[in-house]
Amino acid sequence: MAHIKLLNEELPGIAGLLNYRPETAKPLLELAETLLRGPSRLTSGEREIIASSVSYKNNCHFCHTSHGAAAVAHLKTGLDLIDDIKAGLQNTPVSEKLRALLDIAHQVQKGGKEVTKENIANARSMGASDQEIHDTVLIAAAFCMYNRYVDGLGTWAPTPNEAYAEMGEKLAVVGYMNT
Amino acid sequence: MAHIKLLNEELPGIAGLLNYRPETAKPLLELAETLLRGPSRLTSGEREIIASSVSYKNNCHFCHTSHGAAAVAHLKTGLDLIDDIKAGLQNTPVSEKLRALLDIAHQVQKGGKEVTKENIANARSMGASDQEIHDTVLIAAAFCMYNRYVDGLGTWAPTPNEAYAEMGEKLAVVGYMNT
Repeated sequence: MAHIKLLNEELPGIAGLLNYRPETAKPLLELAETLLRGPSRLTSGEREIIASSVSYKNNCHFCHTSHGAAAVAHLKTGLDLIDDIKAGLQNTPVSEKLRALLDIAHQVQKGGKEVTKENIANARSMGASDQEIHDTVLIAAAFCMYNRYVDGLGTWAPTPNEAYAEMGEKLAVVGYMNT
Repeated sequence: MAHIKLLNEELPGIAGLLNYRPETAKPLLELAETLLRGPSRLTSGEREIIASSVSYKNNCHFCHTSHGAAAVAHLKTGLDLIDDIKAGLQNTPVSEKLRALLDIAHQVQKGGKEVTKENIANARSMGASDQEIHDTVLIAAAFCMYNRYVDGLGTWAPTPNEAYAEMGEKLAVVGYMNT
């Protein structure tokens, strides 16, 4: 049970919190929509992988699995991707650029000052633009917020990957503003 | 110099980043406005103290000092408050409720799952409502984002507290949406 009395205790993860406080839900959802589905040279699938991977590092099961499921829906692949994100994408063909951006995202997860000039130079050498680097840092930073919000208020989350398939499909197709 | 080429390199901290990417600036500023200046039983001064204290724990000089300066402006006190936030408010008379909420915020800074039932029960026993607990968790979580955004992209920040006085006054009086 969550640490506070939600209006609808059946809603898992961030859903119950967004429903509890619509004033803060609005910018939180608009930020997710812009970062994950707005115009970018990174595909939404790539951006959802970054979100899911950072959430895994933050030990946030709800965000890791739901955004992993959104990546699955974007990339039209299997739910195995959710576990492969935990394993560092050993079985998923992704670009070296995305791997370099994930390195940056994982440094951001530890702390802003952990990002090094070498991390940035490496991403650039793999073809990442300034805006892709900017968006990667902000996606990683934003999930350090969403993850703490979800777990800091003790929300519940379904366990199996399968329970997130429909949610991932909805996030990929409908997006964040109308869910 | 920042890790990416900003449009205006003179703008410090988050200001240069908001100017670089207006699409993400909009929800980021709306979130700050709602959390720190929107309707709440917590005063804006108290909320800026939470923001500043979490930023200090995240080692983000720009956010610690600018939001400390905003607290100074709200509470009409001296700039010494900025340093006293680092010292755990030894010289600042604040309520036991705020101290209990700061304990929650500092746990959120470490990680969402670090918040314990005891932290929550203690805040409740000091008179904190569910919405105050919610907002404290989200303020702390949000500054784990803002701090990583500011430092993860290597922005510059003025050093002395005095350099933030005008900015703090502006944040307190004009707010986040028109700056």
